[in-house]
Amino acid sequence: MAYTIGLDYGTNSVRCVIVDTTNGSELGTVVYEYETGQAGIILDPADHNLARQNPADYLKGAEVTIKQAIQQAGKTCKKFNPKDIVGIGVDTTGSTPLPVDKNGTPLAMLDAFRDNPNAHAWLWKDHTGYAEAAEITELAKKEHPEYLAKCGGTYSSEWFFSKVLHCLRTAPNVYDAAYTWIEHADWIPAILTGTDHPDKLKRCRCAAGHKAMFNDSWGGYPDVKFLSKLDTRLGKLRQTLGNKTYVIDQAAGKLTDEWAKKLGLTPGIPVAMGAFDAHLGAVGSGIKPGVLVKIIGTSTCDMVVAPSSTKLPDIPGICGIVEGSILPDCYGLEAGQSAVGDIFNWFVNYIQPGGKEAGSHLALTEKAAKLKPGQSGLLALDWNNGNRTILVDQRLTGLLLGQTLHTKPEEIYRALIEATAFGALAIINRFEEYGVKISEVVNCGGIAEKNAMLMQIYADVTGREMKVSRSAQTCALGSAVAAAVVGGAHHDYSTAQAAMCGIKDVTYKPIAKNHAVYKKLYALYKQLHDAFGLKEKSASMHNIMKDLLNIKETVNS
Amino acid sequence: MAYTIGLDYGTNSVRCVIVDTTNGSELGTVVYEYETGQAGIILDPADHNLARQNPADYLKGAEVTIKQAIQQAGKTCKKFNPKDIVGIGVDTTGSTPLPVDKNGTPLAMLDAFRDNPNAHAWLWKDHTGYAEAAEITELAKKEHPEYLAKCGGTYSSEWFFSKVLHCLRTAPNVYDAAYTWIEHADWIPAILTGTDHPDKLKRCRCAAGHKAMFNDSWGGYPDVKFLSKLDTRLGKLRQTLGNKTYVIDQAAGKLTDEWAKKLGLTPGIPVAMGAFDAHLGAVGSGIKPGVLVKIIGTSTCDMVVAPSSTKLPDIPGICGIVEGSILPDCYGLEAGQSAVGDIFNWFVNYIQPGGKEAGSHLALTEKAAKLKPGQSGLLALDWNNGNRTILVDQRLTGLLLGQTLHTKPEEIYRALIEATAFGALAIINRFEEYGVKISEVVNCGGIAEKNAMLMQIYADVTGREMKVSRSAQTCALGSAVAAAVVGGAHHDYSTAQAAMCGIKDVTYKPIAKNHAVYKKLYALYKQLHDAFGLKEKSASMHNIMKDLLNIKETVNS
Repeated sequence: MAYTIGLDYGTNSVRCVIVDTTNGSELGTVVYEYETGQAGIILDPADHNLARQNPADYLKGAEVTIKQAIQQAGKTCKKFNPKDIVGIGVDTTGSTPLPVDKNGTPLAMLDAFRDNPNAHAWLWKDHTGYAEAAEITELAKKEHPEYLAKCGGTYSSEWFFSKVLHCLRTAPNVYDAAYTWIEHADWIPAILTGTDHPDKLKRCRCAAGHKAMFNDSWGGYPDVKFLSKLDTRLGKLRQTLGNKTYVIDQAAGKLTDEWAKKLGLTPGIPVAMGAFDAHLGAVGSGIKPGVLVKIIGTSTCDMVVAPSSTKLPDIPGICGIVEGSILPDCYGLEAGQSAVGDIFNWFVNYIQPGGKEAGSHLALTEKAAKLKPGQSGLLALDWNNGNRTILVDQRLTGLLLGQTLHTKPEEIYRALIEATAFGALAIINRFEEYGVKISEVVNCGGIAEKNAMLMQIYADVTGREMKVSRSAQTCALGSAVAAAVVGGAHHDYSTAQAAMCGIKDVTYKPIAKNHAVYKKLYALYKQLHDAFGLKEKSASMHNIMKDLLNIKETVNS
Repeated sequence: MAYTIGLDYGTNSVRCVIVDTTNGSELGTVVYEYETGQAGIILDPADHNLARQNPADYLKGAEVTIKQAIQQAGKTCKKFNPKDIVGIGVDTTGSTPLPVDKNGTPLAMLDAFRDNPNAHAWLWKDHTGYAEAAEITELAKKEHPEYLAKCGGTYSSEWFFSKVLHCLRTAPNVYDAAYTWIEHADWIPAILTGTDHPDKLKRCRCAAGHKAMFNDSWGGYPDVKFLSKLDTRLGKLRQTLGNKTYVIDQAAGKLTDEWAKKLGLTPGIPVAMGAFDAHLGAVGSGIKPGVLVKIIGTSTCDMVVAPSSTKLPDIPGICGIVEGSILPDCYGLEAGQSAVGDIFNWFVNYIQPGGKEAGSHLALTEKAAKLKPGQSGLLALDWNNGNRTILVDQRLTGLLLGQTLHTKPEEIYRALIEATAFGALAIINRFEEYGVKISEVVNCGGIAEKNAMLMQIYADVTGREMKVSRSAQTCALGSAVAAAVVGGAHHDYSTAQAAMCGIKDVTYKPIAKNHAVYKKLYALYKQLHDAFGLKEKSASMHNIMKDLLNIKETVNS
């Protein structure tokens, strides 16, 4: 018997699963909610863009969940022995970089910076660096357009250098105290294997390629000259990043004696290179060429791979195209929607139509399910949190159109779901327009698991069957798959996935009549999408949302 | 002493006031709620466009309210004597036509038709004739563009011939049983003066000119040939309409002995020609050249007059330009917004954000009042019930833009109020673009009376002082003014208005800082307005709302 541990660091909690490498069954699952901030996030009421996390929560979470999961596995299966655990895999949110000192210690864990949010981990959804993102985009457009070509043409405020540069500009004391910045996904394996000292640290291809403009074709990270033009101190940081990154089937190192003792594991078992949750979630959903994995939660990640042997063009608006970021020997392509579940949550929690009971997800879903496509006359854009793919524009906002004096909450609720389905279709179409054929769609994440109406709408809108991943914890399962490969339980990813991953029996097939209506609605959605989203379009509405945000900021300042 | 009676037929009730002609003070005010249907309106759950009323309610309402108002006046003022009542004025909603037989009896009051909604009065907000409106517009564009030039370029589904033609098409038994159709505003004075037989009936300029394409320059109502092209039976109706209409300072006739006895009034006192509520509301608010009177309720009417001596161009999008329809010797110009209070009511009653208590008008207003212009980043179009002026298009729908994951109900509530203010400004601008100068704005109606935040927003958006009419019942007061003129208590309207009308001490002056922000927001509103509202605009969004409605109808059929 061989088991592996998958550690999955989410936005609000960390989950540990212990998985049987022969069939993917989960013997133990433990979740630890981060203690610091609100639901694990340090917020600033005065700045909605700010979202930080305490790295100490990450460490405590690893220890607590692995220990409890081992206990649980022992109860689930009498034959289970912690000595049969052959490897550990780790996924995290990202880009979530944290500043560390010369010894690799996070500044947030030093007394001088313990209460300084800028010294903590800058969570993926921190958008404080939006001005810096625009600055980086502009400079890269001028001097190194190839940097942007692999990440959708626009450098995002969610990404590594936007955050680091914003810290440099607004909290120079923190920036100056940091020796380098490390992605959460790199820091955990480094800690577990004792390679967290900056000289030993291995950086993963996934984070570097998707969020930090790393590509071997131009010598790794962006060059010193480029970064120095943004700020000379950023140029200095470049030296600490090195020139090499590691692909997902490699190990970060071996579990240290200290951690092995603390957790009750065998010292020296390999810990796989970390990767982002979406990437290992795709692995856990059985991703392979031709399969789109949609991880549907508060936002979505839409993951695709294409063999490295194919000649892949740059695809505008796709957030990242990085060799080896999801599977070895494949390009990993990442797209996504900035808000999906978050939009429905907004309507339920902020608008509360009809009050808490009448306006619950359950009550609204029940009523919305009775509506026919097109019946409400409503159409919405799914941009309440900007648009990640295809427009790569954080400064887009929501739109609802078609309301009368009789429009009901469930009609709006359904229109919001449909809007996210249209957004999903726009992403599929973008992949295919550039030669990346999608022949199968596998969904995972809480919403895919629980909301049959949404899944049916997605099938009807896209005209494609919607399958659902068998595991409810595909990210953690993907980490366990990575651990199985580095731990030697399986020879490679395709063998490991075949053994450990699968889909549910229940799938959602498109209903022709509904699809016919949604085809018409999608054409209107696309018209709105282009008019409000594309700057270049003649007589476009592109300025409107931005002008409103500018006005909003002016009156608030 | 001379008193007059003002009878004001609203959408849900009729109000009677008894007014002192020397100073406009109201000695008695009685309201009677119509008994038939829901809040006085016969509805069809399967067709939101249908809205009818029972003419029997009108008669009962006149009797009950006048008798009670006389009693009340006696209690209010010991010197009051019903013999000092020198005239009666009447206003009603419109266009609200009803079919009558050869004797002038409404079909709805005959046994054969008592339960047939098509035989009742077709209330102003009945939109069942929208297809016929489009048909009339198209034919007039081709054959008699001058017919449309005086009513904004588009014949509305709310108006006389759209309703009559729709009845002809869909309820031919009712149409064939009718000898002619009479506006509610003509029928009441005719009944009170015994001139309700079709041979004696006088039709008022106001209804004929604004809603039935009457103009002396082309010989009165549209010609037989034109109407026959729509349907030969409509051509036949033309004969029963006559060629003459009567202006507001003329009497319909003298109170019959029978009604005088029933009401306790002096037989033979004059009853003024009827007019629409908005027109006499404008009179009661002291309208004169240069003054815009805004009657703000569920919808708005925006009334302006210009001396007949001025050379007035046709103004596209203004619903009507009719000589003598508001004041004698002036053009009466009517504009309006299809929904104002109705939009806020929709949000509160249909969406109920946060539940009934948290989502009440009061609670939302309190929170919305604390927001600064532009602060929410939201922008809305005020088209939930179409656009009456400037686009004259019933098939436009609402739009809300700029929402994020943090948008709150009070922000939406304020955005909806602002949208109606932008719509109001678009109307003012349209008047002035065509040389009709607006130097003063007087508001009346429930919302103007009660909602200080809304009034301040209107001042800030328009950059103009918002005054409020002194009387809370300006329509009824306007009818009493009309009665005072025909009853001889005043020589003419300007004398009568000077004595009987006025404005409140409290007014709302624009705050420069707010106006500056709203100027920017209005430019964006105008951009949306034109893109979604104008067909001709290149790369417009004009099709979107209509396509959605077409789709909606297809899936519902």
